[in-house]
Amino acid sequence: MIKVNDNFLRIPSSYLFSEIARQVSDYCHTHPNAKIIRMGIGDVTRPICPAAISGLHAGADEQAQASTFHGYGPEQGYQWLRNAIATHDYASRGITSVTPDEIFIGDGAKSDLGNIGDILSPDCRVAVTDPVYPVYVDTNAMAGRAGTLSENGLWNRIIYLPCTKENGFVPELPHEVPDVIYLCYPNNPTGTTLNRQQLKVWVDYALANNALILFDSAYEAYITDADVPHSIYEIPGARQCAIEFRSFSKTAGFTGLRLGYTVVPHDLKGFGANGEEVELHRLWLRRQTTKFNGASYVVQRAAAELYTPEGRRQVRQTVDYYMANALMLRNGLTEAGFEVYGGVNAPYIWVKTPDAMSSWDFFRFMLEKCNIVVTPGAGFGPSGEGYVRLTAFSTHEATTRAIERIAALRTR
Amino acid sequence: MIKVNDNFLRIPSSYLFSEIARQVSDYCHTHPNAKIIRMGIGDVTRPICPAAISGLHAGADEQAQASTFHGYGPEQGYQWLRNAIATHDYASRGITSVTPDEIFIGDGAKSDLGNIGDILSPDCRVAVTDPVYPVYVDTNAMAGRAGTLSENGLWNRIIYLPCTKENGFVPELPHEVPDVIYLCYPNNPTGTTLNRQQLKVWVDYALANNALILFDSAYEAYITDADVPHSIYEIPGARQCAIEFRSFSKTAGFTGLRLGYTVVPHDLKGFGANGEEVELHRLWLRRQTTKFNGASYVVQRAAAELYTPEGRRQVRQTVDYYMANALMLRNGLTEAGFEVYGGVNAPYIWVKTPDAMSSWDFFRFMLEKCNIVVTPGAGFGPSGEGYVRLTAFSTHEATTRAIERIAALRTR
Repeated sequence: MIKVNDNFLRIPSSYLFSEIARQVSDYCHTHPNAKIIRMGIGDVTRPICPAAISGLHAGADEQAQASTFHGYGPEQGYQWLRNAIATHDYASRGITSVTPDEIFIGDGAKSDLGNIGDILSPDCRVAVTDPVYPVYVDTNAMAGRAGTLSENGLWNRIIYLPCTKENGFVPELPHEVPDVIYLCYPNNPTGTTLNRQQLKVWVDYALANNALILFDSAYEAYITDADVPHSIYEIPGARQCAIEFRSFSKTAGFTGLRLGYTVVPHDLKGFGANGEEVELHRLWLRRQTTKFNGASYVVQRAAAELYTPEGRRQVRQTVDYYMANALMLRNGLTEAGFEVYGGVNAPYIWVKTPDAMSSWDFFRFMLEKCNIVVTPGAGFGPSGEGYVRLTAFSTHEATTRAIERIAALRTR
Repeated sequence: MIKVNDNFLRIPSSYLFSEIARQVSDYCHTHPNAKIIRMGIGDVTRPICPAAISGLHAGADEQAQASTFHGYGPEQGYQWLRNAIATHDYASRGITSVTPDEIFIGDGAKSDLGNIGDILSPDCRVAVTDPVYPVYVDTNAMAGRAGTLSENGLWNRIIYLPCTKENGFVPELPHEVPDVIYLCYPNNPTGTTLNRQQLKVWVDYALANNALILFDSAYEAYITDADVPHSIYEIPGARQCAIEFRSFSKTAGFTGLRLGYTVVPHDLKGFGANGEEVELHRLWLRRQTTKFNGASYVVQRAAAELYTPEGRRQVRQTVDYYMANALMLRNGLTEAGFEVYGGVNAPYIWVKTPDAMSSWDFFRFMLEKCNIVVTPGAGFGPSGEGYVRLTAFSTHEATTRAIERIAALRTR
C-alpha cells in the first residue's frame, strides 16, 4: 500500500506566505487600481551586481565550449569557491579555524536548513525561538520531531523560546534541555541581534548539555554594531556545538540564482543510539553526496566574483542600499508613533501593532489603508502575535512612498 | 544530546564513484603518463547547445537590470517552463493527461529521487531492480527502510529484483508485495529497456497491489525502438500508481547546470496510518515549498530554449552524437569477443566480464591494460557482479581510441 509519511498529515496545509499572497491577490482583484508596495516576503529588488553578472556570462561561455565545459561538479562545491569563502568570510574576520573542507556549497540556506534534519535522530528534542522562520518548525514537523499541534498553535514536542519586547528579544535558557537549538541572528523576523556575550551564553549552554546549535546567519552582512558576532565561530567552543548556515540571497541578491553554504566543523560530534561517536561532517557529506549533485556551476562561478575586491565593493553597496531603507522605515514608523524594533543590524523591521490589534488585523489594516503588504507576526509563531514584519528590500522610491503613506495615517 | 540518525551509521561509508575515483587516482599517481579514458561515471562531455547558452546569457542580462530582475521564483518552477514540458515532452507524444500543474521543476533527478522519500512512510517496503542506481537504495537506507545490511551486500528489508542475462534483464514480479517500486528505463546501469507490454505488467501489478512506482526516465531521449515507452504515462492506469522523474542532464548536458523535473499526477493517492486518503501531489508540493526554493532562474531560462524548434534540433544532435558512440562501443566490444548488452536505447553498455572475472577485477584489468575507466557492476548490486558498465558520453575521438585499445587486447 502507498503509505505516506503521517507527519505531513498533521501539518496545516497553508504556508504563511501563500496565505498572504492569497489575501493580497483577493484585495487587488477588488481594488484593481491599488498601487501595492510589497514589504511582506523577504525578496530583494536590486539587480545582481556587475561582478556576479560577468561571472554568469563567463560561466555560460565556458559551458559553450568542450574544452572549458563543466559537467558534474563536486557535490560539496568547487574548491575555488570554498577557498574564497574560508578566506574572505572567515579568516579575514579572524576565524582561521574554518577550513574549506568544512564548507559545503548548496543551492540555498532554505534547502540546507531543511535537509540537515536528515542526519539527526527523529527523537531529538528541538528548541526554536518564537517568533521563528517557519521552515525550522515545519521541517521538524515533517520529520516527526514536533509531536502534535495544539489549538494554541504550539507543537507539543517543540521547545519554544519566546522573544518579545518584554525580554528585549533575547531568548532565555529553556527549562527542558533540547538536543537541537535553532538560532537565527541577526534575527528573522524581529531584526534583533545577540551580542557576543549573549551568544556565548548559548554556546556555553550547548556545550554543557551536549546540544547542537543550528546557527542561521543569512543576514550577517547587515550587521553594523561591532559587538554583534558575524559568525557563531567567533565564540570559543562553537566548533564543538554549532553548524552555521549562510546565504548569498540577501547579500548578493541571489534569491533567484540559488546559492548558500553550510559550515560543519570536524570538531562537531554526535552520538548513535549505541553511544558511538561520529563526526556530523561525515554524515552531512554522505547526505549531500547521495541526495544532491552540487549547485549550478554558473552560479558558483558568479559567486566567486563576489570575492574579488570589485565584487566585495558592489555587495557592500547593495547591502548599504537596503540598510538606508531600513533606517528610513525605522525613522518613518517611529515618527508616525509606532513602536519599532530591528532594522539596525538587519534588513527586517519588527513593529508592534497599535491598540492591541491582532497581527492579521494590522496586516489587513496596512493593506487596506496604505496598500502596503507586511507580514503578520503571528505567522512566525505565537509570540509574534501583536507584531508585524516589514522588510527593507524594496527600492528607495517604494520605501519613501510607503513612509509617506504611513505618515498620512496620523493625520486622518 | 546530539543524537544522530542511526540509519546513517549502518550505511557503508564509501560511495561507488568515490571508490572508483580513489583507485583511478592511485593508478595515475603511479603511472603519471597514462592516458586515461573515463567511461565510468555517467558525465557528459559535449558542451551545452547554443540555444541553451543564449538562454543563459539572456537570463544573466535580465538579472542585471532591476526591471527584469527575477528574485524568488515559484518553488515548483516557472509556469512557462512547465507549460513547455507539458506540451513537448508529453502532449506531443499523445500524453495529454499530464498538466503543467503536475510538473515540479527541481535541481536534478538525483535530488528529487532522494527527497521523494520524505513524503512516504518509513515503514514502506521498497523494491529495486538489481543491479540498480545506488541512490535509490542508499536514500532508503538513510530513511530506515532498508533494514540491516547482510554480508552478501543485500539489505534485509529491500526486495531485490534480479536483472541478468538469464532473464533478459526483465525483472520478475516479486513474491513479497512491495509498497514502493523503483523502475529506471531505459535502465541505468544495464542500458536495457522494457517494452510497452513489459512495463504494463508492472503498472497492472502496482494497481492491483496499491503500490507506488517511482519511474526514473532520465534516459528516455535515447530510445530508438518504437515499442519502448518514453513515459510510464503511456501505460493506462499509470497516473494512479506512478511518479515520473526526468532530467536535463543527459539530454541537454545540464549535469553541471542542474535541472530536472518530477511529475506527480493528481490521480495518485496514498494513505495515512488511519486510512485517510491523500493526494501525493499535495504532499510533494508541501515538501518542495518548505524545503526548496526553486531551481536557478537562469538555468530554467536556458531550459526553456531547449523547447524551441532550434533547441530541440540541437538536443537531438547531442543525443545522436552519444548514440553513435554507443554503437561504436557495442560493435567494438562485440568484435573483440565480449558479450554486450544495452547501448541501443540507452547511453550505457553493459559488458559481461570474461573468464568469470569479478567486476572489480575486470575494472582493474581495464584500467591497467587499456587505461579505460569502467564501472564495476558489483557496485550497482549483487546481480551486477560479473558485469561492468561503459558509458557512451565520451567524445568520438576518445571512444575510437578506447575501441582500438580494446581490440588490441585480442592480439596479445
